[in-house]
Amino acid sequence: MEWYDWKFSVCLWFVFGVHSSPVNIRQVYESYDASVSRDTYLRQREALLQADENMRIGNKIVLDENERRANTILMHYKTLEINKSRASDTPFPPSIHFFQAKPLIEKSKVFQIIKKMPKGGALHLHDTSITDVNWLVKNVTYRENCYMCINKDGFIYFHFWSTPPQNPDCPWRLVKTERANSGNVDLFDQRIYNNLTIVLDDPVSAYPSINVVWKRFLQTFDQAGGLIYYAPVFRDYFYEALQEFCDDNVQYLEFRGLLPTTYELNGQEHDQTWALKVYDTIFKQFTSTNKQKFSGGKFIYSSLRIYKEKDILGEVIKSLKFIKQFPDTFAGYDLVGQEDPGIPLLDYLDALLYPSQQSQPLSLPYFFHAGETDWEGTPTDRNLVDAVLLNTSRIGHGYAIVKHPAVLQMAKTKNIAIEVNPISNQVLKLVDDLRNHPAAALIAENYPVVISADDPALWGARGLSYDFYMAFMGLSGENSDLRLLKQLAINSIMYSAMTANEKAQAMDLWKLNWSHFIQQILQENQNLSSYIRPGPPFG
Amino acid sequence: MEWYDWKFSVCLWFVFGVHSSPVNIRQVYESYDASVSRDTYLRQREALLQADENMRIGNKIVLDENERRANTILMHYKTLEINKSRASDTPFPPSIHFFQAKPLIEKSKVFQIIKKMPKGGALHLHDTSITDVNWLVKNVTYRENCYMCINKDGFIYFHFWSTPPQNPDCPWRLVKTERANSGNVDLFDQRIYNNLTIVLDDPVSAYPSINVVWKRFLQTFDQAGGLIYYAPVFRDYFYEALQEFCDDNVQYLEFRGLLPTTYELNGQEHDQTWALKVYDTIFKQFTSTNKQKFSGGKFIYSSLRIYKEKDILGEVIKSLKFIKQFPDTFAGYDLVGQEDPGIPLLDYLDALLYPSQQSQPLSLPYFFHAGETDWEGTPTDRNLVDAVLLNTSRIGHGYAIVKHPAVLQMAKTKNIAIEVNPISNQVLKLVDDLRNHPAAALIAENYPVVISADDPALWGARGLSYDFYMAFMGLSGENSDLRLLKQLAINSIMYSAMTANEKAQAMDLWKLNWSHFIQQILQENQNLSSYIRPGPPFG
Repeated sequence: MEWYDWKFSVCLWFVFGVHSSPVNIRQVYESYDASVSRDTYLRQREALLQADENMRIGNKIVLDENERRANTILMHYKTLEINKSRASDTPFPPSIHFFQAKPLIEKSKVFQIIKKMPKGGALHLHDTSITDVNWLVKNVTYRENCYMCINKDGFIYFHFWSTPPQNPDCPWRLVKTERANSGNVDLFDQRIYNNLTIVLDDPVSAYPSINVVWKRFLQTFDQAGGLIYYAPVFRDYFYEALQEFCDDNVQYLEFRGLLPTTYELNGQEHDQTWALKVYDTIFKQFTSTNKQKFSGGKFIYSSLRIYKEKDILGEVIKSLKFIKQFPDTFAGYDLVGQEDPGIPLLDYLDALLYPSQQSQPLSLPYFFHAGETDWEGTPTDRNLVDAVLLNTSRIGHGYAIVKHPAVLQMAKTKNIAIEVNPISNQVLKLVDDLRNHPAAALIAENYPVVISADDPALWGARGLSYDFYMAFMGLSGENSDLRLLKQLAINSIMYSAMTANEKAQAMDLWKLNWSHFIQQILQENQNLSSYIRPGPPFG
Repeated sequence: MEWYDWKFSVCLWFVFGVHSSPVNIRQVYESYDASVSRDTYLRQREALLQADENMRIGNKIVLDENERRANTILMHYKTLEINKSRASDTPFPPSIHFFQAKPLIEKSKVFQIIKKMPKGGALHLHDTSITDVNWLVKNVTYRENCYMCINKDGFIYFHFWSTPPQNPDCPWRLVKTERANSGNVDLFDQRIYNNLTIVLDDPVSAYPSINVVWKRFLQTFDQAGGLIYYAPVFRDYFYEALQEFCDDNVQYLEFRGLLPTTYELNGQEHDQTWALKVYDTIFKQFTSTNKQKFSGGKFIYSSLRIYKEKDILGEVIKSLKFIKQFPDTFAGYDLVGQEDPGIPLLDYLDALLYPSQQSQPLSLPYFFHAGETDWEGTPTDRNLVDAVLLNTSRIGHGYAIVKHPAVLQMAKTKNIAIEVNPISNQVLKLVDDLRNHPAAALIAENYPVVISADDPALWGARGLSYDFYMAFMGLSGENSDLRLLKQLAINSIMYSAMTANEKAQAMDLWKLNWSHFIQQILQENQNLSSYIRPGPPFG
């Protein structure tokens, strides 16, 4: 290939996306003429529409006959549900707050199909916000030696003690006794649930700004910490998380975590290596007992973006040790916390350059949160620049990246996937109506996007299906179909931190479960026989 | 230039925008290396940041020394106001509803500078929603023979009558008498004002959906119609509109209109040609008496997108007649009304192709509203495709275009400007927080954008400054500066329907007023002497 052809190809690749062929667009341009006949116009129109749709994530996929039948069923329900909202002005779930949308979503046939769909991996999650809080309430708080205290603002904290210490500002009481004395166990448990999540009746009034909702959000981590950091619970919590995601047909997990110090009832404390060993062991154990549905997972160590730079250097060095110690499970490093008031990546530059600056450069994959902000032109917004220049493997959220065309191009060149967490971005106040989420543009132009759930438990979601529903219904159009869902699942495997070999195995498992899923949809919707004609093959 | 260089250039032009040079980006790519020193990293970072910023609208402009001083003042206030919101969590006007934001904006120093700035033209306005409703209340409803009636739902309608007819459902009463009997003239007038606009205290509750707010919005046109369509008022209303925009330092207007039948007190009715003559005459009259500040304007005839196709053909043919009859003032044709439930452009295809299909093709410039929707993949959304294929001169709103990369590319190739109306899109329920407006991405990549005001009077705005404020503070970042504002003003002249000669004259006038404006800013902010060092020249 001559150099100019190469330049042109690279350039077209920017324009049309990794997997797209530019042919349709160029045909449209070349054949365009203003004074055309109706027929010619309609042909040009079809070509432009096709060119546009072909750029979308998944639209290069050619479905087989069964998939086309399943797609017809899926699109029957999708169109029905969208038109219902368009015509009768009933709320469209992606356009309203998730707390109000959740019961509507659960009634949706599209959602029920998505729940059954093998969704690949969930790549953006956090350690202590992934297991349904109902499990904490109904299982953990029912265990022996579980104590609670209610602070002056009415927030409930928990801890396991053999004998609780004095705690004048928030005296410890045995949960078992409190529950028994409450007079209404269901109400008591519901109160705990509400207290450990950000869920409430009127989120619009309760959380007027991003700072208010983040304050409450971070507090729930503290409140539940005493439960989750109890060593026996810590193991069970993680196992339960894997079970819930597996039940939701997610076969692989990558999650960020702080590797907290955990405790035993006798006061003994476990260090970070202990926590990592738990993750490593349970990942392997769960995978081996769920071979038909689960491929495993990896851990991304994270520090709070309020640390001093010298502390971050320590964390980086520690990560380099962990990556050797737990090669199967330890994937890399990130910084977490509310990004707007947090310290920008630039301030940690020397620490973050450390691995690559060694005389024998060391490899520490980064998975930076960046651009989780509505504020353009600020240091937070510029985290996107540093994430990309520091060769992040993926970008967490990347919400602001569409406002940075040069950064977006470089990220695309480097094939850096963006981890989109639709519901998180809504409940944490970046955007109200998810149809306005900037990832709609990324999906439309086949930017490598993966869909994840961030902290689903804290807003009453569970697994990955709610976020996939939002991506399918809100972040893409009425005409985006099974091919988008399929490619998003494939993306989640391809852009994971798995090795090539692990990816191949995970893809094999996913393909198997995908074909089961397609069969299941066809079987369960035989009543729609008039619809179960295969649609066009596409692609 | 060889063909491959040409291809490459065209391609780069897609990627980097019309006026951008790709050099910075390529330098960044070529010099990139992961294991770099801190200094090298920082140089690469600066190059990528610059490449990114250079793509923004206006960032190729080189400011002269006075402009740089004025820019320093402007940016002093901009940074102050943004940081105030970021730090102390006070509401950021572009992020909250305009009804709540308006008093905050009016206190803003940035807004006061923008008000004084010569903003060029306002290219997207509608005939009967551009003059402050206070003028209707305080001037028109005080005229002789003005009657009002209040319907069963409490909405007030108006008409001028010598003797009002029977109107049992809504009996006519003389405004003068009602006002006198009201006991509180101010309250009476305020009630009329509120009734003729969509302004109210709690818009979030009052307008839960786009359909609800549009219903109320369209009703206000009906309510005020009886005032504005009274022939003597019709003339004055239009003159007052020009005066208000001129006072707001807008030198040129293009507006859509239905050319309504107007009436005299004696029952005589005037046809559409009469209305066009009024526009033509008053444009010329106002321009000649305001030579130092005003360049004129043009009219875009519009039909409601509920008509049958045969009626649209009639409207197109009528437009072809008008364009000959009023060559200075008649600019072209559009279809208006709420786009989501409206008939799509495609259904009017034969009528809209009519001019170009004549054996001697006729020219009728189109200025289509298209993509004023949150619903992707619907017929409304596809209006964007037809607008572009039908060679629209500009796109009204184009809100959805970022979800259509191929259509966006073709529109850019054809140099079709997008008329962005930030406040309109917010109050009419497309987006809540204007930092999420998709035009932020268009501005960031130097898509030809013009800022306009749509129907400012109906939501209590006036002129163009409120929308320019939103574009400057909400649709672009903390670091976008005077160059953005300057280019937006220039765009509004370059993408207008003026002839080349008219544009040249308008640009001359604009340049003169621009240099007065810069002087004025410097003079009025001498107290900021420590800041009035010229910033860097940029560009």
